[in-house]
Amino acid sequence: MKIAIAQLNFTIGAFEENLEKIIRAIRRARQEKAALVVFSELAVCGYPPHDLLEYRYFIEQCEGSLQRIAAECHGIAAIVGGPAVNPNHRGKNLYNSAYFMANGEVQRVIHKTLLPTYDIFDEYRYFEQNTEFGLINYKGFNIAVTICEDLWYRQPLLTGYGKDRLYSVCPMDQLTGLCPDFVVNIAASPFSYLQGEIKAGILTENAARYKVPVYYVNQVGAHTELVFDGGSMVVNPDGIISRMKLFEEDFGIYDTDAVLAAKAGSVVLPRSSEISLIHDALVLGIRDYFGKSGLKSAIVGLSGGIDSAVTLVLAARSLGATRLRALLMPSQYSSDHSVNDAIALARNLGVRYDIIDIRDTYWQYGQALGKVFKDLPEDISEENIQARIRGNLLMAMSNKFGNIVLNTSNKSEAAVGYGTLYGDMCGGISVLGDVYKTEVYRLADFVNRDREIIPQNTIAKPPSAELRPNQKDSDSLPEYTILDKVLFNYIELKKSTEEIVRLGIDRNLVEKIIHMVNLSEYKRYQLPPVLRISTKAFGPGRKMPLVARYN
Amino acid sequence: MKIAIAQLNFTIGAFEENLEKIIRAIRRARQEKAALVVFSELAVCGYPPHDLLEYRYFIEQCEGSLQRIAAECHGIAAIVGGPAVNPNHRGKNLYNSAYFMANGEVQRVIHKTLLPTYDIFDEYRYFEQNTEFGLINYKGFNIAVTICEDLWYRQPLLTGYGKDRLYSVCPMDQLTGLCPDFVVNIAASPFSYLQGEIKAGILTENAARYKVPVYYVNQVGAHTELVFDGGSMVVNPDGIISRMKLFEEDFGIYDTDAVLAAKAGSVVLPRSSEISLIHDALVLGIRDYFGKSGLKSAIVGLSGGIDSAVTLVLAARSLGATRLRALLMPSQYSSDHSVNDAIALARNLGVRYDIIDIRDTYWQYGQALGKVFKDLPEDISEENIQARIRGNLLMAMSNKFGNIVLNTSNKSEAAVGYGTLYGDMCGGISVLGDVYKTEVYRLADFVNRDREIIPQNTIAKPPSAELRPNQKDSDSLPEYTILDKVLFNYIELKKSTEEIVRLGIDRNLVEKIIHMVNLSEYKRYQLPPVLRISTKAFGPGRKMPLVARYN
Repeated sequence: MKIAIAQLNFTIGAFEENLEKIIRAIRRARQEKAALVVFSELAVCGYPPHDLLEYRYFIEQCEGSLQRIAAECHGIAAIVGGPAVNPNHRGKNLYNSAYFMANGEVQRVIHKTLLPTYDIFDEYRYFEQNTEFGLINYKGFNIAVTICEDLWYRQPLLTGYGKDRLYSVCPMDQLTGLCPDFVVNIAASPFSYLQGEIKAGILTENAARYKVPVYYVNQVGAHTELVFDGGSMVVNPDGIISRMKLFEEDFGIYDTDAVLAAKAGSVVLPRSSEISLIHDALVLGIRDYFGKSGLKSAIVGLSGGIDSAVTLVLAARSLGATRLRALLMPSQYSSDHSVNDAIALARNLGVRYDIIDIRDTYWQYGQALGKVFKDLPEDISEENIQARIRGNLLMAMSNKFGNIVLNTSNKSEAAVGYGTLYGDMCGGISVLGDVYKTEVYRLADFVNRDREIIPQNTIAKPPSAELRPNQKDSDSLPEYTILDKVLFNYIELKKSTEEIVRLGIDRNLVEKIIHMVNLSEYKRYQLPPVLRISTKAFGPGRKMPLVARYN
Repeated sequence: MKIAIAQLNFTIGAFEENLEKIIRAIRRARQEKAALVVFSELAVCGYPPHDLLEYRYFIEQCEGSLQRIAAECHGIAAIVGGPAVNPNHRGKNLYNSAYFMANGEVQRVIHKTLLPTYDIFDEYRYFEQNTEFGLINYKGFNIAVTICEDLWYRQPLLTGYGKDRLYSVCPMDQLTGLCPDFVVNIAASPFSYLQGEIKAGILTENAARYKVPVYYVNQVGAHTELVFDGGSMVVNPDGIISRMKLFEEDFGIYDTDAVLAAKAGSVVLPRSSEISLIHDALVLGIRDYFGKSGLKSAIVGLSGGIDSAVTLVLAARSLGATRLRALLMPSQYSSDHSVNDAIALARNLGVRYDIIDIRDTYWQYGQALGKVFKDLPEDISEENIQARIRGNLLMAMSNKFGNIVLNTSNKSEAAVGYGTLYGDMCGGISVLGDVYKTEVYRLADFVNRDREIIPQNTIAKPPSAELRPNQKDSDSLPEYTILDKVLFNYIELKKSTEEIVRLGIDRNLVEKIIHMVNLSEYKRYQLPPVLRISTKAFGPGRKMPLVARYN
């Protein structure tokens, strides 16, 4: 039997568009003689629909779409993700389900058992857990249909509590007793540069343990913060047989006999570097943020520094130079080379730029505030005024020309609060908010690997906010290599001060950094959505209390 | 036996302070001859600690505190809320638990069964569900210990799916078979002006159904967005016997025989109006935001309009006039009466105010942007520049003098996006972001019920943003009474366009309003934390996708 995998990029709530994509894939699969075509988790509405699931009309729209898709399933079967109303009188309203469609109708609905509710996942907010297990028999094959996390029973846990398993039920242990011929896993598994190997490992481990091939179809495309990387796979007990494209739609047809017979290593996977994956994830993240929102163009405040440079490059690759503009806003504290580096970059990319000097406006704020500030010494207030003038100018351009402001804060800055709310922290989407400063440098080197796109001076010079004379980041912050190491251990790995000190970092420094992170929770609360590339990004996946005594 | 209820205001993560409060209450209870003293849910660390629960050292601090509290329990027993490590190899790391302490040690740990995971609750993110049921025997009494939601099995559901119950296990059905003499419920149940009656109803319904008294202890105090109202209660099968103070710490001692013998109606509860409850909740919300963060003072941008006026009054009642300052920032579009009304209010309250005219700064922006804007007509860009100048000035005052900016947006504006990001939407905490405009008027009337504090002109004049000549809110928005009705039905009740049209509101208007709500999701993403007084506030309790096609 031939199985088609349709790795598609859906838009949340765009029922007609999603439907059209699904139906087109069904027709193509049928034409190419597939007997079954599989689609990703919640394909019908896009994942994650969040609280739209609580609106009854939204569920009715899902149901309507599913009916229309089923009507298309003649001469072929399909497995399509969608929410299903829980018919019991008790429990959550919905299941997260896989619809098996054949002969023009929905023939079976399989529900998700393991409901991830951690980090960016909140599925138990909406969905009831499945408790009944059965296979789907189709053309003589017994198919175990699972939904994303259902295969993640044996996921590695980093909890420090000696736990083996996050869940107390293993769906595959239940299903294996029924002797499936193969497993289908429909997923919406977001990208993280730390998780590529783990995903492949989970799939191969399941195939080997249960001695069945696994057909894994993942969603591709970005939904606000979350970037889904696709990379759907076919795996047999020997290993990975095929992997589909990363960060793009893809379509493949696999013969069940050939999959069974294939030897591991018969397909050599292209291995990508971490940094190239991060690059591609961010490019897709920007593209879908704009494309799916119907936004046409973007603007970046270009300082001559590395963060805004990398942001502009990524945006140019996502949207094209003609849909971008840059704004340079020098002050008396901007060095000549900053302006020149910014201009050089804009020219290299072919991005239109304007220069608005902020000195007079800054002076005017001094006048306006003079009678209240009197002769109080200058301090962080004056630095922030400059950053907020720039924020105001960028937003004015945005309002006048419809360019959405791309936020240029990096994760290190956002972590320690080294940024101005409503100033450089403004924007519609944060491109680098999950990228540590040391990784921003690696991105810049990656961008420049063949030729100099980002001026070398931008990369080489010591980072500075240029908000007072001769300011350097290193005046207020530790070296970024050490800072990022502490931050990664505290944020991603959730280690304590003690544990981080044991890595060989000075205790005072660790305490200072963690204190800065905790103190700036209030700033991150108002950060724009951050494109997520790690396992712990700022935003909805990291819920720290704002009003709290941190130790 | 005498039971003490300690209704306390904890700070998340402030272990020493929380411990001291708890120990002081244990000593007082013992002195007043109580045999048992009960504390609220997660008392040891404060509720909700969010992802601090994922940090192992945080749990160790909880454990340390619990040991020290247990050591105090000589001659008295205590029930104290705290997290407990799940000793099983499978499942979530923690339970949400009640520690029964006596004879200087922890004698039993009872775990929470029903884990609310909806709206602002996310307990399944952290906690494993309890599956074993038992009573605590103490001094001849069999005590059923339950934790908050455990009594909410029969909560009213508004789902439209004909559901009876949100959960499939009823803890009290399990416990009643063991013949408890009374129920203790330790809770952290946040205030909503719509839920006061429901809470009392749940408690009396449980007491009547299971024919046992219920001792309910609730947390009091605000934690960022969430205001916990206290109002702990003692209920017997006949009805409410006693209710403790709302919005304040309280302590009471109840004799089990007297509670059993008491007749319903023997205690007449003071009934408060909705609007006075909202008023008190907001005052507490501001007070604890500042007090628990160690913030000293606040600043309000005073426009002469009703939103900033009500915000300033509430802040004055929370913090006192001397910890407040007001900033008036008139432009060429500000009417004289706006400035005069603002001054009159500041004087009525004894709040220091300054006036900074923004005309010159606004003119300077025009100069700076002139060569890019050229002769494009004025539009919303220019309006927003004014709002953002005001935001910048407020933040500059905040940076210079340490006054936290109070955001003055109301829920109606925030809902339809009638506000400027980084302008009037700035601030550390949003006081009125969960209060519809029509409710803001009711708050103003409530404030003025005895004498004119808010100038009558502020209340009477047509609302205006004063960002262009003769602008009125009604130029862009429907009448607030209709707008708020549509918003309440869409946001709180999750009704569809169709359902709202059936309430007798013009279809075009309903569609327009809902469209505005959906389109402005991106603005609310960056709103400051909003003090929650309804059942559906903007913020973490309402997770709507930002990039999505809304119908």
